[in-house]
Amino acid sequence: MTRNRSPLDDDRLRATVDINRIQRRLDDLWEIGRTSAGGVSRLAYSENENEAHEYLLSELPDAYEITVDSVGNLFVTREPDAPRTVLTGSHLDSVYNAGRLDGTLGTVMSLEAIEAYHTLVDEPDYPPTLAVFRAEESARFGYHTIGSRAALGTLDAQTLSATDEKGIPVWQAMSDAGFPPGDLSEPTIETNRVVSFLEVHIEQGRLLDETATNVGIVSSIRAPVRYRVRVDGNFDHSGATPMELRYDALAAAGEMICGVEQVATEATADGDIVATVGDLTAVNGAINTVCGAVEFPLDIRSTDSTFRSRVEREILAELEAIADRRGVSLECEPIDKSEPVALSERVQRQLLESAEAAESAYRRLPSGGGHDAMNFQLAGIPTGLLFVPSIDGVSHNPNEETPKAAIDEATRTLAHGLARVGET
Amino acid sequence: MTRNRSPLDDDRLRATVDINRIQRRLDDLWEIGRTSAGGVSRLAYSENENEAHEYLLSELPDAYEITVDSVGNLFVTREPDAPRTVLTGSHLDSVYNAGRLDGTLGTVMSLEAIEAYHTLVDEPDYPPTLAVFRAEESARFGYHTIGSRAALGTLDAQTLSATDEKGIPVWQAMSDAGFPPGDLSEPTIETNRVVSFLEVHIEQGRLLDETATNVGIVSSIRAPVRYRVRVDGNFDHSGATPMELRYDALAAAGEMICGVEQVATEATADGDIVATVGDLTAVNGAINTVCGAVEFPLDIRSTDSTFRSRVEREILAELEAIADRRGVSLECEPIDKSEPVALSERVQRQLLESAEAAESAYRRLPSGGGHDAMNFQLAGIPTGLLFVPSIDGVSHNPNEETPKAAIDEATRTLAHGLARVGET
Repeated sequence: MTRNRSPLDDDRLRATVDINRIQRRLDDLWEIGRTSAGGVSRLAYSENENEAHEYLLSELPDAYEITVDSVGNLFVTREPDAPRTVLTGSHLDSVYNAGRLDGTLGTVMSLEAIEAYHTLVDEPDYPPTLAVFRAEESARFGYHTIGSRAALGTLDAQTLSATDEKGIPVWQAMSDAGFPPGDLSEPTIETNRVVSFLEVHIEQGRLLDETATNVGIVSSIRAPVRYRVRVDGNFDHSGATPMELRYDALAAAGEMICGVEQVATEATADGDIVATVGDLTAVNGAINTVCGAVEFPLDIRSTDSTFRSRVEREILAELEAIADRRGVSLECEPIDKSEPVALSERVQRQLLESAEAAESAYRRLPSGGGHDAMNFQLAGIPTGLLFVPSIDGVSHNPNEETPKAAIDEATRTLAHGLARVGET
Repeated sequence: MTRNRSPLDDDRLRATVDINRIQRRLDDLWEIGRTSAGGVSRLAYSENENEAHEYLLSELPDAYEITVDSVGNLFVTREPDAPRTVLTGSHLDSVYNAGRLDGTLGTVMSLEAIEAYHTLVDEPDYPPTLAVFRAEESARFGYHTIGSRAALGTLDAQTLSATDEKGIPVWQAMSDAGFPPGDLSEPTIETNRVVSFLEVHIEQGRLLDETATNVGIVSSIRAPVRYRVRVDGNFDHSGATPMELRYDALAAAGEMICGVEQVATEATADGDIVATVGDLTAVNGAINTVCGAVEFPLDIRSTDSTFRSRVEREILAELEAIADRRGVSLECEPIDKSEPVALSERVQRQLLESAEAAESAYRRLPSGGGHDAMNFQLAGIPTGLLFVPSIDGVSHNPNEETPKAAIDEATRTLAHGLARVGET
């Protein structure tokens, strides 16, 4: 089955996309859950998340029909009876004291792209639907993309019963927000009606910003394998213990952190990989003590699980070699492992064409973090993910910012994409 | 002025020194402030410290005359009217959940050595005085050797007004313990009567234990120069930031810690040096973040301040080179600096002869930590410091232990020392 679809006129699109409207909506949403530090806190299934959803509904022209599914996800379309649709959207919940763009920008841009699309297209093959998913962030419950997984029928019992810091489980929080969950083993949406899912998000890294690229087309989503590492040496008096008699767990950990960095940096010549030690606890550390015990987390991500396993083995071998040479003990406890998701090649190609139609500088890149888009691709729905630059790579921080030109170009790219995605 | 003094008969000394009495007194003192973890908490100027002093007085034969100075230091002697005396002793206060030996062992061994000395010597040239100083540990007020500095008239106003975690200043704590401080600008003891001060202490390092040496004769006391180091890079998403775009403060700190270790280890070929990073704070560290800010303390000690300055310069240059190469910023704030103290060569020689007379394996070594002995040497009183092994180098920890044979040999060495120290 092949359909020939008409590309949009980019000049008309430029005249239609209203960057000031996007800006005003971002500013309005910024007020919902705004923090004293200039950020925003709209935790999953909080009153603030509800209020943000209500705000978005208040911004819709009358022509849209609104559907709220059993877990509170929002679906908004002009043509609810169309046999097939393109979904586009993101989320409005946030981490604690978040930036004002993560999730929110993608939601507001999607609405703008849909409105522009309808202005230009009279009889769409696949009329778009704005999707706003609940509880994308793991900040409250430790589990991410809860809403989109519920929509796709892939939410597990472990996530549903996970609790926040007050002991409130996910299902209770859903109920409290007005969405008592029913049978979640089935999708809440008709997945076979969905031609494609398109999401826009800030990059959360610095690649687009450093390369002055306004539109990123995500090739695949890196997934982590994670360890908790413990190094045990000897606690000794810092003044009384000669250098050659020490079993310094902190010095060993320092060498290990450098080892992780070096193995990963060298491996980037052969494939996609990042590896990070992002935290460290010096157990009973003190200025006058040779530290005898250190714990740190290890996070290794790649878009290619085979390659990731190779680097993972090299890193673990390096840690063991350091521990052996220093006579300290090493424990590496696996705590998390998930599989990378390659996004649809066809949708990537369609988005590359869309970025060209929007006359934007673009590049393909992997996504470092997980997004709702990931779950759609895993459910077999051809999925695309566009990134806009976050200046200085800032993420989950009140300083999140994206250049206006990038918002404009990416909104037009998305509108072109709405017209291009389909079965070819 | 030269005096010829009679060495003690070591066979008679062996028959006199009662290791079981030492053990019983250690056990009794262990009960004062004993913690659930098997350690002991007898903070400076606490009721527990008072009680430990009272216990010691209860153990004294009637022949001793007792003097308590204005800050609660205890001086105990059979011959208060002797024109000159040898002081020997240590302290009974402790850190939180301390081992039962630090300070206490030296105090109890000194009393045993004095009793044995009097059993063997009828008309001593320099009759010994047991000295028990208050508040040697810095655990409560952040300042150490308060009692011995008061005894010598070298206590400063800064120390006197330092507060504990409840905000109680030193002078108030002295008052509350029954010792309202008067004029502390003058020594509380007649310093010109003191021929010598001899202290015994556990090593707090592992050198004696690892070399199976029961008696250590301290040559000098290492003193630290200390810094608080801050490294600032960029906070980034661990999954989204390629290795080559990172400014990872934790990886930089890891390399710096290894640099400190390497510079110091190589420098030990040229002189006495230890350098330590004993703690580390990863600011806002998280498993999914490239850490953008790290703080750690740096402690560099030597018995030779000139050599220490050389190594200090090398270490700071190494940290700067690492920061420059990585493009992270570095701040090294000096927070403490004190001068090493070389102990009397004459007293060292007399103690070496004493260890030989006691038929003990001995060696000279530096002290890594400060002790009351340091203040006596600084006040111009020829001072000796004996170390006994702490098994596995344990210090400030309930697991402190010293072999019985070492306690026996060091007590006899101290008794021989009481008979040998003098003006030649």
